[in-house]
Amino acid sequence: METGWIEALQAKMGEKMISSRSDLDTYSYDAAFGEFFPEAVVYVTNTEAVSEVLKIANEYKVSVTPRGLGTGLSGGDLPVHGGITLDMTQWPASVEVFPNDLVARVSPGTLTSEIHAEAEKHGLMYPPDPSSSNISTIGGNLAENAGGPRGLKYGVTKDYVLGLEVVTPEGEIMHTGGHTIKNVTGLDLTKLMVGSEGILGMITGATLKLIPKPAAAQTVMAAFSTMEVAGQAVSKTLTSGILPAKMEFIDQACAQAVEKYEPLGLPTNVEAIVLVELDGHPTAVQEEAEAVSKIMKELGGTNISQPQTKEDALNMWKARRLVSPATANIKPTRASEDATVPRSQIPAMMARLAEIREKYDLLLVVFGHAGDGNLHPNILCDDRDPEEIERVKQAIEEIFQSALELGGTLSGEHGIGTMKSPFLEKELGPVGVDMMKRIKQSWDPNNIMNPGKIFPDKGQRLILSRAVERE
Amino acid sequence: METGWIEALQAKMGEKMISSRSDLDTYSYDAAFGEFFPEAVVYVTNTEAVSEVLKIANEYKVSVTPRGLGTGLSGGDLPVHGGITLDMTQWPASVEVFPNDLVARVSPGTLTSEIHAEAEKHGLMYPPDPSSSNISTIGGNLAENAGGPRGLKYGVTKDYVLGLEVVTPEGEIMHTGGHTIKNVTGLDLTKLMVGSEGILGMITGATLKLIPKPAAAQTVMAAFSTMEVAGQAVSKTLTSGILPAKMEFIDQACAQAVEKYEPLGLPTNVEAIVLVELDGHPTAVQEEAEAVSKIMKELGGTNISQPQTKEDALNMWKARRLVSPATANIKPTRASEDATVPRSQIPAMMARLAEIREKYDLLLVVFGHAGDGNLHPNILCDDRDPEEIERVKQAIEEIFQSALELGGTLSGEHGIGTMKSPFLEKELGPVGVDMMKRIKQSWDPNNIMNPGKIFPDKGQRLILSRAVERE
Repeated sequence: METGWIEALQAKMGEKMISSRSDLDTYSYDAAFGEFFPEAVVYVTNTEAVSEVLKIANEYKVSVTPRGLGTGLSGGDLPVHGGITLDMTQWPASVEVFPNDLVARVSPGTLTSEIHAEAEKHGLMYPPDPSSSNISTIGGNLAENAGGPRGLKYGVTKDYVLGLEVVTPEGEIMHTGGHTIKNVTGLDLTKLMVGSEGILGMITGATLKLIPKPAAAQTVMAAFSTMEVAGQAVSKTLTSGILPAKMEFIDQACAQAVEKYEPLGLPTNVEAIVLVELDGHPTAVQEEAEAVSKIMKELGGTNISQPQTKEDALNMWKARRLVSPATANIKPTRASEDATVPRSQIPAMMARLAEIREKYDLLLVVFGHAGDGNLHPNILCDDRDPEEIERVKQAIEEIFQSALELGGTLSGEHGIGTMKSPFLEKELGPVGVDMMKRIKQSWDPNNIMNPGKIFPDKGQRLILSRAVERE
Repeated sequence: METGWIEALQAKMGEKMISSRSDLDTYSYDAAFGEFFPEAVVYVTNTEAVSEVLKIANEYKVSVTPRGLGTGLSGGDLPVHGGITLDMTQWPASVEVFPNDLVARVSPGTLTSEIHAEAEKHGLMYPPDPSSSNISTIGGNLAENAGGPRGLKYGVTKDYVLGLEVVTPEGEIMHTGGHTIKNVTGLDLTKLMVGSEGILGMITGATLKLIPKPAAAQTVMAAFSTMEVAGQAVSKTLTSGILPAKMEFIDQACAQAVEKYEPLGLPTNVEAIVLVELDGHPTAVQEEAEAVSKIMKELGGTNISQPQTKEDALNMWKARRLVSPATANIKPTRASEDATVPRSQIPAMMARLAEIREKYDLLLVVFGHAGDGNLHPNILCDDRDPEEIERVKQAIEEIFQSALELGGTLSGEHGIGTMKSPFLEKELGPVGVDMMKRIKQSWDPNNIMNPGKIFPDKGQRLILSRAVERE
């Protein structure tokens, strides 16, 4: 970092910049762990401003951290090396639907739920639906390649991005991909940028693919006396020729937490609940709902129900969405993981999680996207209790290790950020990490874009408290 | 290129290598244009052998060109800088289906149609279906990100790749992605490799996503008196809430060529034929087929038919598949393009193509994947007639220009290779090309992997004959 940058930035940005310590507090944390202060925050509302900031940052070698609404779970918008936080939340929301092309152009500051609503006005659907849809922006969804329940049938954010406007780390404006469904012109920079967690540049606009909205949907709920049988029910459904839109899993502790938070009628006396949504043609949906119910019943499922009104169905999905806030209420600290395994390994991963809970004597609850193997083991703890936190850290390392041993991955949808970077090489091996670093280095020779993310800093360890621990 | 490489390679590869000029002839051309001889061909049948060859090539700075079955239409396997051709066709075919995970592991030398067949044995489907499925290997499909008719509903090759085994240009073995449906660990090297046309390394294995095979399918055919109305029928269907699996277009000249080649009952007295396939639940498919037929009729479509037997349906699709060989029979040379436009621009692109045909007085026929805007204008000509070839070149440049002006792309599915590289910067701009080159340079500092592809060599021009012209 070279001196004089803050004055140069101030001269260019004027009122759009803040740098007094008291104003920076809200930028020092997000939905993950750790506390890091930026030295300045700049509000950007157009592509040219982003380009100007990055040119100054690149000249003075100052770190730049992009930030949307701060809902990320892997620390992607924490300014771990200080410098500038680029606040994208003042950028005007904009969704322009082109119904004849089945695409939409969006600005980075748009809430994902606004894209859902605009698409529906045209009988269309933007499938990616992270649980944070109402409180996260598409810019963050793009940077993290957000997933969500519908990933099972429809894929994740990346599968719906046709083109991007990007400002490179050196401040150049670039357009990747385009407005067409097929495009093989050159290297695929669009899909490289989506999920790159802000280390390769700033996404300032996107063209998204839409699909016709399915005509009907039907929810099926079933309860199981053991986690293992619930896992089998998921596997059996998926190999029966049916591809549900969603297939979610809630364990007993989560169900109890939800019912305490807001009673919605979840059974609380069973080990596991499976929630399924079928969508498509009305006749197909009804037949598939019957077939799924039959599979659940044959495996000993109880409380099998198919809500007959939209309201009842919405209540079931509300219960699923409330798992996160309800469990967060139980203890002061929550470590939320998203290690993902091949679908056939869901029962095995469930068994491993039960062992880990036992071994480290922790309040480990599990919910998540069972249909695509993307579980969310959550450990509820208290970061003021160093002895407990030490056990949590060991448990998390063992969760990662288990996922990798079962042929899975560290992260299904939350990203690596600061939270999982110490474990990156375990999954990718030294060659994989090296090839990623070469791309980063070739695009961002001064390492200004979101440094300290994905690739671990020297000696970096897992952080599980707001205050930072470093060796 | 440093001396001694051929001896070093011979010492390592022995009988697996050939280098006499007479043996190299079949490696000097493919399904595109231009004639280029490699200096040696190596048959590789396992990952370690690829690694050994690339290590030698990197040490001596010798060009390496991968080659499968040579069906590419953009020159991807032409050894334009000489050196080594890596022949992948002796690699044993292998498809291992994991039905509980809905994935398959395949070797690069496997025919794409073998993957289709193996998946079907388990009631599953591998959706990408380039027209060359029976004569092209998955290795080539991965390198070029092959498309095909089903891209409309199901996407292209890249959408079904979960993980890869890759040998880097420096001969290191790397595994990208994995066996899970969701994975956001690090930069997405999987999707960067797919469609990178062999310039970033060798793909030596892949894990592919499978889906449940749809229970039913129904074909609908309709004829239209003008290309413009056919384009409207495509647009209207796609905005009606129906997403067909395939939506193909054949113009009059193509239909006539097919009927001459093998009479299959296509109407030859109309300007355009639209072929649609709906798939999914039987009831949904029947309702949608009726709805599509109604749309076609309302727009003045004639000869509307829904084949009632599997055989009749297969015949219609056989007619579509025969367009390519049938039109190739008309004149000695065929330039096949795949410029792609946003779906709403299909009628406008049809009009541009009619103008271009008129202006340059050429036998320009059109067929292709109308549903995703990916048309295949084909110019039938004779490369021994330099005056005609000059007109063809101008027409092709104008086709590219038209596609870009309508918001489209140079290539929807064939790739850039040598054929479209002179036009690359027109679409991507200098920044886009520069960022791609940086990745290439950082991974392949000696520029050994498939040089002369994607990025144009100095002074490179469009080649439309087997013999090479250079300035």
